[in-house]
Amino acid sequence: MEVAHISRIILASASPRRQELLRMLGVDFKVLVSTFEEHREVDQPLSPAELVMATAQGKAEEVFRITSAQAETADDLVLGADTIVVLKGVCLGKPAGQEEARRMLQALSGRWHQVFTGIALRHRCKSVTAYERTKVHFRSLTDREIDAYISTGEPMDKAGAYGIQGIGAIFVDRIEGCFYNVMGLPVPRLALLLQEYGITLPEVKTLVRTGH
Amino acid sequence: MEVAHISRIILASASPRRQELLRMLGVDFKVLVSTFEEHREVDQPLSPAELVMATAQGKAEEVFRITSAQAETADDLVLGADTIVVLKGVCLGKPAGQEEARRMLQALSGRWHQVFTGIALRHRCKSVTAYERTKVHFRSLTDREIDAYISTGEPMDKAGAYGIQGIGAIFVDRIEGCFYNVMGLPVPRLALLLQEYGITLPEVKTLVRTGH
Repeated sequence: MEVAHISRIILASASPRRQELLRMLGVDFKVLVSTFEEHREVDQPLSPAELVMATAQGKAEEVFRITSAQAETADDLVLGADTIVVLKGVCLGKPAGQEEARRMLQALSGRWHQVFTGIALRHRCKSVTAYERTKVHFRSLTDREIDAYISTGEPMDKAGAYGIQGIGAIFVDRIEGCFYNVMGLPVPRLALLLQEYGITLPEVKTLVRTGH
Repeated sequence: MEVAHISRIILASASPRRQELLRMLGVDFKVLVSTFEEHREVDQPLSPAELVMATAQGKAEEVFRITSAQAETADDLVLGADTIVVLKGVCLGKPAGQEEARRMLQALSGRWHQVFTGIALRHRCKSVTAYERTKVHFRSLTDREIDAYISTGEPMDKAGAYGIQGIGAIFVDRIEGCFYNVMGLPVPRLALLLQEYGITLPEVKTLVRTGH
């Protein structure tokens, strides 16, 4: 396999959870947040998988254009990622208000939905893109639970009106698929993509001491 | 439902991940680590579910005996938890050396195994115990990947010779069941058990600001 020269790995995402997952892998990286605009229109012609891959590519490409312009960072490998929530084929955005949050949570209650994450790696020599899909199931929620959850404020800035990394966790009783995809970064898939660049995890220098 | 008076919630576990998950729920708690000995013998007569529940109860009971002896902490609610890895009906303990770690990882490679977590709540008025089971799949591993992983040192103090919260994450390409169970604390199940004590999550004071 041809091995590209990589000077640094750049994460084009402000997500604390993605940063935490990359650190967990022992990967050295730097964060450069993209300002690429995420498109979440329900009527757009792209499938959910196409949408997250396009957005991940857009984020990686934007940061790549900045770093590749300078000689000393021309060999940076830029990672972009994007995650969306899909219910019955409809991409759920952030609720416009409490009423919409209530409707979204009622729609998710007792049902399966899907979480898509696209990841894109951009380097001077090669670009690769992939996505992962995970099924997520909500237990049945009472109106009281939904109201209490809305009162916490957590749903208001979240796609699908819930945060799986927050209080919303108590609603998710089952998933099928990649564990880390739901957290915003499909780690096993990323590890395979990094092999395209001659980076095989785990590297011996890495040593993360956490339990099950 | 009868509501027990709860003065404090005590987590009888040193696990940083369990503490992180409880914080994520906005639960106020204090940590008092149990010295209860975990039993991991392959030949024991208990099923995996019985084993994790018994150990969770043992941990909770030990800490409860300490706190309940004093009037001001007699109303503490103590949470114990225990997590094990089971492959083909055999409970995998910590590998005794690199050779055993290699055998365990080879056995896990390309197969499904199960993760069991027992949780036990102990209070002066009421005790409840439950468990959750999640299926976990490893992608096929090469000998090179296994050797590199062993070289990181991570497998040596882990049941099943891997840490899902560490580099081991790159091996886990699929799970079926509760997401948080694999992290050591089945959060939706815990939320239901807390309702037995009149504690309904989310409480309005809780506000965790994290993204998907």
